[in-house]
Amino acid sequence: MLLLRRCPSLTRLGRVGTQRYQAAPSFASRAARLCSSSSSSREDQRSYQHASSGASWKHIVAGLLTGTGAVLTYGLHHQEAEQADAGVPTAEKSSRLPVFSNDEVTKHRSLEDGVWVTYKGGVYDVTEFVAMHPGGNKILLAAGGALEPFWALYAVHDQEHVLEILSQYKVGELSVEDRKKQEDAKVSDPFSSDPERHPVLRVNCKKPFNAEPPPEILTESYITPHVFFFKRNHLPVPQVDPASYRLKVEGLPGGALTLSLEDLKTRFPKHTITATMQCAGNRRSDMNKVKQVKGLNWGISAIGNAKWSGARLRDVLLALGYGPEAAQWARHVHFEGLDKDETGTAYGTSIPINKAVSEEGDVLLAYEMNGEDIPPDHGFPVRVVVPGVVGARNVKWLGRILVSAEESGSHWQQHDYKGFSPGTDWNKVDPRSAPAIQELPVQSAITAPADGAVIDRGDDTLTVKGYAWSGGGREVVRVDVSLDGGRTWQVARLRSGDDGQPDEPSPPPGRAWAWKLWELTAPLPPEAEELEIVCKAVDSSYNVQPDTVPPIWNLRGLLSNAWHRVKVRVAEE
Amino acid sequence: MLLLRRCPSLTRLGRVGTQRYQAAPSFASRAARLCSSSSSSREDQRSYQHASSGASWKHIVAGLLTGTGAVLTYGLHHQEAEQADAGVPTAEKSSRLPVFSNDEVTKHRSLEDGVWVTYKGGVYDVTEFVAMHPGGNKILLAAGGALEPFWALYAVHDQEHVLEILSQYKVGELSVEDRKKQEDAKVSDPFSSDPERHPVLRVNCKKPFNAEPPPEILTESYITPHVFFFKRNHLPVPQVDPASYRLKVEGLPGGALTLSLEDLKTRFPKHTITATMQCAGNRRSDMNKVKQVKGLNWGISAIGNAKWSGARLRDVLLALGYGPEAAQWARHVHFEGLDKDETGTAYGTSIPINKAVSEEGDVLLAYEMNGEDIPPDHGFPVRVVVPGVVGARNVKWLGRILVSAEESGSHWQQHDYKGFSPGTDWNKVDPRSAPAIQELPVQSAITAPADGAVIDRGDDTLTVKGYAWSGGGREVVRVDVSLDGGRTWQVARLRSGDDGQPDEPSPPPGRAWAWKLWELTAPLPPEAEELEIVCKAVDSSYNVQPDTVPPIWNLRGLLSNAWHRVKVRVAEE
Repeated sequence: MLLLRRCPSLTRLGRVGTQRYQAAPSFASRAARLCSSSSSSREDQRSYQHASSGASWKHIVAGLLTGTGAVLTYGLHHQEAEQADAGVPTAEKSSRLPVFSNDEVTKHRSLEDGVWVTYKGGVYDVTEFVAMHPGGNKILLAAGGALEPFWALYAVHDQEHVLEILSQYKVGELSVEDRKKQEDAKVSDPFSSDPERHPVLRVNCKKPFNAEPPPEILTESYITPHVFFFKRNHLPVPQVDPASYRLKVEGLPGGALTLSLEDLKTRFPKHTITATMQCAGNRRSDMNKVKQVKGLNWGISAIGNAKWSGARLRDVLLALGYGPEAAQWARHVHFEGLDKDETGTAYGTSIPINKAVSEEGDVLLAYEMNGEDIPPDHGFPVRVVVPGVVGARNVKWLGRILVSAEESGSHWQQHDYKGFSPGTDWNKVDPRSAPAIQELPVQSAITAPADGAVIDRGDDTLTVKGYAWSGGGREVVRVDVSLDGGRTWQVARLRSGDDGQPDEPSPPPGRAWAWKLWELTAPLPPEAEELEIVCKAVDSSYNVQPDTVPPIWNLRGLLSNAWHRVKVRVAEE
Repeated sequence: MLLLRRCPSLTRLGRVGTQRYQAAPSFASRAARLCSSSSSSREDQRSYQHASSGASWKHIVAGLLTGTGAVLTYGLHHQEAEQADAGVPTAEKSSRLPVFSNDEVTKHRSLEDGVWVTYKGGVYDVTEFVAMHPGGNKILLAAGGALEPFWALYAVHDQEHVLEILSQYKVGELSVEDRKKQEDAKVSDPFSSDPERHPVLRVNCKKPFNAEPPPEILTESYITPHVFFFKRNHLPVPQVDPASYRLKVEGLPGGALTLSLEDLKTRFPKHTITATMQCAGNRRSDMNKVKQVKGLNWGISAIGNAKWSGARLRDVLLALGYGPEAAQWARHVHFEGLDKDETGTAYGTSIPINKAVSEEGDVLLAYEMNGEDIPPDHGFPVRVVVPGVVGARNVKWLGRILVSAEESGSHWQQHDYKGFSPGTDWNKVDPRSAPAIQELPVQSAITAPADGAVIDRGDDTLTVKGYAWSGGGREVVRVDVSLDGGRTWQVARLRSGDDGQPDEPSPPPGRAWAWKLWELTAPLPPEAEELEIVCKAVDSSYNVQPDTVPPIWNLRGLLSNAWHRVKVRVAEE
């Protein structure tokens, strides 16, 4: 299949270098996979089209480095070469192309035999394109057959310029008979059963669904209602019947265990924690302002705080025989979701065993969010809640748990959700050089006033609000706020409950899973016409946020936790 | 006693404000205590004298804010007032002062009765001075008696200007008879039995001894030899006889336990860890460059890495009956040293119970450092090693352990070793507003080349070396190095062993107690005349160091972990 995903660098041609793509096929695949799980929003598509239609092909080529860039670069060169060779325009070429049967097409399923695909009755030899496919080697899965089912899953392909690239590879037409057969096998939209969402959410990607609430809603309540809790799906939301739901637990001396939802609820004590969950890509938009990265353009609201209830993973593992003997070899616990891609591969990841079995790890197999059944978008009927750890490890629609000596080999563990140096680009990146993100660093953001807001000069005071959180159970102990871009600082008031309500009790050290909301009311500086409001948090290990974005910029735009800044104007009413 | 300690703000009169001291005696005491445990180096004394002799009294008064500043301010005003009242110079005044017996002096031991002290045959009424004493209320301990024994303990008092201040309070002469008695009771130097130290150490304070190795030595070996390991003593080194040494363990259902050194070595398994220890004040000198702070002017070498062996604290506590019942109420474990001040108060502090009893906490009652008996400067015969936690909690010369529901009430737990906002000054600080420092944030520094070094332009490459470490068992996963002040970054090579030797095995997650040494060899930028070399580390929770010092500046100069920068010149040989 052609899993062509957005490459945001296309939108900022002026900033990237002029280095040409050089042969690094395995890397190109990798880069593309990193991109794959976070694309296809309407916004992405706009950016993509804008870049391609606004700039000439020559300019695009000059501006592209790797990934999808490489695809387009390659496509252009391929086109130029063909035109030079044949001396005829490509459009005319197709009229004299041969007709192939489906049987013939299916013979081309490898790099050796050639990689052929069909699309709307055309036959395409994409062998040369495989190494540059942003979706990586997965393109081989579509070899010998129709692209349509795959493109239905990844809506980003449904764009004019993707078709333009594809057209360069056309080698023939599918026979009329086989074309009719394909049309009869209708492609259904795998996202058609996704749940309804509230229109207030800002959608970063529709399929799979990725959306966040407006920042000003976020800090209105200490516990985030599920409706406003950010959604970050990697695949279609699976439909799970709670009555027939079964969770497999494997890898322990007790043998495999299959638990029904009822088992989980009745055989193990119910445990409740308040925990904040944050996407590794939260605040990615700040990195995009420095230099374009690959990934959904999250604002500051890919974070939420909820009460989660369920069985402790520890209890389940102990019941299955986890003990000193298993501790000798067990190092990781894998989680697999029931959400699967077109190849049947489930979303999967793992966490270190010590977090999973520690009494203080508080890892839950949660079946309730904020006192109700977990909603479909958040993992109904069961999700893992790994407090203090990046959202990506909190697997939703949990289907399988495996205790293992090895880390998960999944794409999301080995190739995505890792942090790199700002100097590392897609040509140089070696995913093995960085550990999988688990605990997240200290974070904070300003939810009010909004960037660009106008403050009435007649007001005596200004109130600034926001959230702050740190990973690993490290409590936020202070938030500093500046009204002058970071020159002087004031200490904000922190709270662990709704405004005016008593705070939740203080957690034991290392088990502060929930965020703090904060507020500062300060005199409005009398002469200022513009204020740059900045916040930064400190956690119980006295880790602080870095001052600026460029030194933590990374090619996937993860871990964006520099000081948050908003500019407001002060004016007469 | 007059416990007059260095106030480094004296050395930078031009930078501090002109705000006058306002009545805040309890705070002033506190501020002074914060200062008290880190003073009296030769360097301090130089700074002090320089400031006082170089500037007029008027200027000093204008420049002082609090603490010792307040003392001097007060002293001057007091003097002026007396001179105005009496119309005679102070020097002449003393000639007509009355003679007091020691019995009369001892009647003045409170604010109500007046606070009198004697010094070299003079009698002084320091009642009005008590509220401004940088050493706090402890001055009352000296009431009614001689200052000499206390000043012997705090050598910073032995300065001309301290005597000038004292002279303002003179009210009489001690009788010849009593003076003779005092002289007969010779004052011994409590530091006289301190061990010999290697002259390569850079001494920040002689009494108590505080010193660090030259940075270039620090990264020569993965394990720091004890001779070069930084020394940070709060009090004189106690002389402990290993045969009669006893460790008291209290607060548990098993009752009090008294363990000999032999008990510790034979009744509990010997456990060895490699752990880095860092002073909370490491790199304080970087903060001093921004704005003067109170504390010893540590460079980048108040850190070291050693192999520590001993009994696990966990094992000792379990042997004494720590279990689920104690877990209901126990929250902290206190440690008291055998090093005591002139009042008999031992150095003391505490750590959270979960760190103390966790299998993964690795807290040791260590009796060996690098395979040998712990040397006297590092806690002979037993010190606590709390890996991942600030040096201050790694109590040396351990005398007592107490399991408690409360945090230690000691000065070092409640008033010192806490972090504050850069906007918090000595007038505003509330020690209760900040938690005691336990785990430290991520840190790194450049040990070579040295700041100001000259690099030969003929060299093709430049090699930069340093260390990196993070608290809480968070492994350092990357060090970025910049040769251009932070605009571009390269990734350094990390190692966990001596150069050319195999790395130590990777620790389990959350138990990476030891530092990484790192090195980068990069092409020398061809045109550069000056390079600003910068390093920054990333730990396994992807916490990073802040870019700059001012936003983390704090009045005690603790937790100084901004990017480390050195400037070098490139020149023809």
